[in-house]
Amino acid sequence: MSEPFSAVEVIVRKRDRGELSDPEIDWVVDAYTRGVVADEQMSSLAMAILLNGMNRREIARWTAAMIASGERMDFGTLSRPTSDKHSTGGVGDKITLPLAPLVAACGVAVPQLSGRGLGHTGGTLDKLESIPGWRAALSNEEMFAQLESVGAVVCAAGDGLAPADKKLYALRDVTGTVEAIPLIASSIMSKKIAEGTGALVLDVKVGSGAFMKNVELARELAETMVGLGTDAGVHTVALLTDMDTPLGLTAGNAIEVEESVEVLAGGGPADVVELTLALAREMLAGAGRGDVDPADKLADGSAMDSWKAMVRAQDGDPDAVLPVAKESHVVTAPASGTLSRLDAMAVGMAAWRLGAGRSRKEDPVQAGAGVRWHARPGDQVTEGQPLMTLLTDEPDRFDRALEALEGGYDIEHGAEFEPTPLLIDRIG
Amino acid sequence: MSEPFSAVEVIVRKRDRGELSDPEIDWVVDAYTRGVVADEQMSSLAMAILLNGMNRREIARWTAAMIASGERMDFGTLSRPTSDKHSTGGVGDKITLPLAPLVAACGVAVPQLSGRGLGHTGGTLDKLESIPGWRAALSNEEMFAQLESVGAVVCAAGDGLAPADKKLYALRDVTGTVEAIPLIASSIMSKKIAEGTGALVLDVKVGSGAFMKNVELARELAETMVGLGTDAGVHTVALLTDMDTPLGLTAGNAIEVEESVEVLAGGGPADVVELTLALAREMLAGAGRGDVDPADKLADGSAMDSWKAMVRAQDGDPDAVLPVAKESHVVTAPASGTLSRLDAMAVGMAAWRLGAGRSRKEDPVQAGAGVRWHARPGDQVTEGQPLMTLLTDEPDRFDRALEALEGGYDIEHGAEFEPTPLLIDRIG
Repeated sequence: MSEPFSAVEVIVRKRDRGELSDPEIDWVVDAYTRGVVADEQMSSLAMAILLNGMNRREIARWTAAMIASGERMDFGTLSRPTSDKHSTGGVGDKITLPLAPLVAACGVAVPQLSGRGLGHTGGTLDKLESIPGWRAALSNEEMFAQLESVGAVVCAAGDGLAPADKKLYALRDVTGTVEAIPLIASSIMSKKIAEGTGALVLDVKVGSGAFMKNVELARELAETMVGLGTDAGVHTVALLTDMDTPLGLTAGNAIEVEESVEVLAGGGPADVVELTLALAREMLAGAGRGDVDPADKLADGSAMDSWKAMVRAQDGDPDAVLPVAKESHVVTAPASGTLSRLDAMAVGMAAWRLGAGRSRKEDPVQAGAGVRWHARPGDQVTEGQPLMTLLTDEPDRFDRALEALEGGYDIEHGAEFEPTPLLIDRIG
Repeated sequence: MSEPFSAVEVIVRKRDRGELSDPEIDWVVDAYTRGVVADEQMSSLAMAILLNGMNRREIARWTAAMIASGERMDFGTLSRPTSDKHSTGGVGDKITLPLAPLVAACGVAVPQLSGRGLGHTGGTLDKLESIPGWRAALSNEEMFAQLESVGAVVCAAGDGLAPADKKLYALRDVTGTVEAIPLIASSIMSKKIAEGTGALVLDVKVGSGAFMKNVELARELAETMVGLGTDAGVHTVALLTDMDTPLGLTAGNAIEVEESVEVLAGGGPADVVELTLALAREMLAGAGRGDVDPADKLADGSAMDSWKAMVRAQDGDPDAVLPVAKESHVVTAPASGTLSRLDAMAVGMAAWRLGAGRSRKEDPVQAGAGVRWHARPGDQVTEGQPLMTLLTDEPDRFDRALEALEGGYDIEHGAEFEPTPLLIDRIG
């Protein structure tokens, strides 16, 4: 078959700051998926897009082309509305775990296709897989049935959804082209739109432990994604939330499940509860159920019931004892005073090095590994008291984890502590 | 072996407008040659270099790394000094053919490693290969011996010279990254420096038929290359010369050899003679023989003797009848007046489509194909007189060649004709 464009002409247009036409975008995404546009051509195009940008029309078309590369799900026949959440990734970010069953308990179905962790940020599927028996892979039929019966599904995205994105993401990862806002936004949104959710709340993380280190870039990404979702008919809102400090008191897999269950039981760290409720309210409002107060569903135990039903539906045992790391090492406070800073990136790196995360997507993770911290910024600590507990099955990992934590926290004496707000902005 | 850098960190540094260190450049060029840095990584780096540039140190180091990827020739033991010329490519640019033997006749050796044509620009080896028996491939020993005995060699570059450049050039060709001045300059200069010439004159073409369409970019390229040559101890000068109009009266292979022989016989088109002499004077001055007047050597037949010796040394017969195209088609002047413009790109495209050039490097070329024009800008023409003769072995090629010539020339009546100078600038 003769091709309507050449890869070089498309690359050169973007390289020379031109706009790609709709047919050019459709062709290049499709031809890349078919292997007609080679990896080395797509990577130079990705670099040109990263450096020269794309306008809103181009990003929307690129997203549409990635959606068109695969199947598209449709939950229109479900008996309840659907609403989903996507986080751009952080440290200690277990929010999906209490959030999905909580929203389900409020009468809105949550069809979450999720991913595994890479680098210092954790992955929702890795956390859930620490529950004995739980399985991430569901057929479309199983997913649909569980949404109808339980109201919440967190499972792995199948290969059928936006295959162009899958191929492009792997390429960007090795060619220094991950950090392109048009490509990040279209990658996330192509999957979420293809997934077929009616409403979507984006949790765009900002700070040292996040992908976006500054608020301006995070806002640009959030606005781009909200625009894409809205144009595609998905009710989309974004919250910009802090990721200078890790969320809650744990970063790992099983230990984050444990913390999530505390939240579902009506307890848990205040920041995790606050963010879970804020995102739940947005998800409910997006699905037209803004009248329901999710706090009630935490208090009355119905969110916990949904959680157990959700875990069981995927062959997990919600009452099983979770895996525990074989070895632990306690870091004590080197001085007395106020813990004025706990760096999300340092904690995330430490948890990764302890075995909770992976460097390559085929690596395994340890269910019990991670970091527990015993104080949060603003708390008073006394010299010698336990500050953090490092957990791993392999004690030779402690040294490099401790290195990652060097300079990762400050204890100040007598200084005024200014708490940073968790919720920074709302876009939508 | 563990690698000292990662490709992604090098790409990201250039992407974010940083400077690459000397060890990073050495590593990335070497690792690419070894296949440790993948094509899709080098192409995104090439795009970042194209868009963000490199400073003089980076370009010099990049060039040195490409030289270090292969062998380096040394003509220090020759009995005469060496001087070479490189043209960035044009239409009707047969200058090497009369120039190399002319300079040899003046006592300076010319060790020219040359290439084949691609697209609308011709290649010196393609032209010489139209001479019955002539062969482009010489061993290093043959080249050295011919330089000593004849004083001029034009032959194909072996695989041993700058293999990194060979691999990188093929990649840039398909990834929209050809037009990066640091990469063009280092590609040309790595081969010329590795070739071991003592002096070098660069003929940087400017205009519609050239790679560089405007004088500013051509000057930047020329200055970059002169800097690289000078830093490497090669006496380097650049001339910026016009390529809005094709050179001489022919564009093809055998017909350009014929025109070159006319120049060597003391005749030939004035512009070809002018440029040949200007470049010869620079080559001689660079080699410390500025006292010799090359015009004398054209007049006294010694340049012609060198030509014949050079052709014979490579098994060609300088007295053989050259191949002639099987078919010809005459384009007549559509009006009377002054030929005010003859576009180099249009003529180059026509010659290419007639079979004189190739689209892919493995394609053959026709020895007899090409375009002869019978008037040059400034000449008076009469309606119906022959303006151009198109030559090919395959008459079905005429239509597309005629299409290429549409709008490629202007005939004006009564207008003042302003000739454009052939020599635009000198840098060095």
